[in-house]
Amino acid sequence: MDPTPPSFPVTPRNLVRRRPQRGHYDHETVCRVLDAAMLCHIAYVIDGQPYCTPTAFWREGEHLYWHGSSASRMIRAEAKGIPVCLTVAHMDAIVLARCGFNHSINYRAVMAFGRAAPVTGDAAKRRAMDAFIDRFFPGRAAALRAPTAQEVKATTILGMRIEDASAKIRDVGVHDEEADYAHPVWAALIPLTTVLGAPEECPRQLPGVTAAGGGMAAYRAGRRLDEVMAETAALKYS
Amino acid sequence: MDPTPPSFPVTPRNLVRRRPQRGHYDHETVCRVLDAAMLCHIAYVIDGQPYCTPTAFWREGEHLYWHGSSASRMIRAEAKGIPVCLTVAHMDAIVLARCGFNHSINYRAVMAFGRAAPVTGDAAKRRAMDAFIDRFFPGRAAALRAPTAQEVKATTILGMRIEDASAKIRDVGVHDEEADYAHPVWAALIPLTTVLGAPEECPRQLPGVTAAGGGMAAYRAGRRLDEVMAETAALKYS
Repeated sequence: MDPTPPSFPVTPRNLVRRRPQRGHYDHETVCRVLDAAMLCHIAYVIDGQPYCTPTAFWREGEHLYWHGSSASRMIRAEAKGIPVCLTVAHMDAIVLARCGFNHSINYRAVMAFGRAAPVTGDAAKRRAMDAFIDRFFPGRAAALRAPTAQEVKATTILGMRIEDASAKIRDVGVHDEEADYAHPVWAALIPLTTVLGAPEECPRQLPGVTAAGGGMAAYRAGRRLDEVMAETAALKYS
Repeated sequence: MDPTPPSFPVTPRNLVRRRPQRGHYDHETVCRVLDAAMLCHIAYVIDGQPYCTPTAFWREGEHLYWHGSSASRMIRAEAKGIPVCLTVAHMDAIVLARCGFNHSINYRAVMAFGRAAPVTGDAAKRRAMDAFIDRFFPGRAAALRAPTAQEVKATTILGMRIEDASAKIRDVGVHDEEADYAHPVWAALIPLTTVLGAPEECPRQLPGVTAAGGGMAAYRAGRRLDEVMAETAALKYS
């Protein structure tokens, strides 16, 4: 058995320079952070100007996918194969220390680098559009009204192979300078979680139609979104 | 009285092209979205490569500020005055429609464009470091152990004037094609909120030291982070 877990190459662009002890390059850690998220932020450049666009995304192996309108500026630029940085960040706690310098946030973040490329061909696009739905709501795509030719045309799916990536994680408590523990100010972690509320059903729901069997089993009110994301990702890809 | 609310200029880079009805350019809407957030994502370019870094930030008027280690790659690059795009996104609901195409996310997002510039001078840096703390925890800076000269040196504060910005907001229910309402699949909004947990006090808390009076009044367990952010921002800047 290979004692070295599969890892992304460490390059000048994904090297965690600041606080390197928080950096991780192994696939397992990087994918765990990615798979716990619905939303990412994608940085890309058009004519020297950086843009940062939030969007839903999903992972299949070492590829990340997202979608957009074929008419959107981001999608048109990315479809040319430009370099992108896809970032995921979970905020887990506010860290209140005894000096400003040691205030922090507990977080799990990933920066993934690659080149965007469009998924082309009707069958491949339809498969990707279904995969997008099923990644979040396993099995739901088959229950939906199928995409029309116009919808397929109007949708661009972008994908990128992760060329390199790194995770950066802070998950410890308050850390102060030794002398500062005597300073009389309140110090604590304040946990942060993103949670699901109770569903607000469409007012035009058909009588008798329920969420049962439609890929929504994980989506119970009060649950953490990151846990639901990890659970549904595992159902899809394990 | 001027009937036109103050707005950011609409330029090619902040124009909301896709679904323009979701776009807003007035200061009030843009600032409301910004002030409800602790975390932003900043896109910047080094040698043609885009990076997207999550970081805490704050607003003062038409300026946005963030900080970092003087040793970090992002901060060193941004201190040269490079263009950045600072993006905030709140996810408010998952929108489950009757076809894949109409699935969506309810969100409040802002993209703000400008050029990063460092805050220079010891007094100005100290003021900004205190402002960073006080924006989130009004009045807390004065209760902390004051920054050392070394901490001030090791911290770089970046600021940018918002040259242009736009907000993009989706806050409506399920919207399906008329014919699709007859398709028997469950459709709903699933609300998402990021909430504060109960504080986990530092194990080395001094006896008798409590959170009272330290700028933490808004931080009650169970509250929404976006509401706490809006409330503390208003205390600081109203």
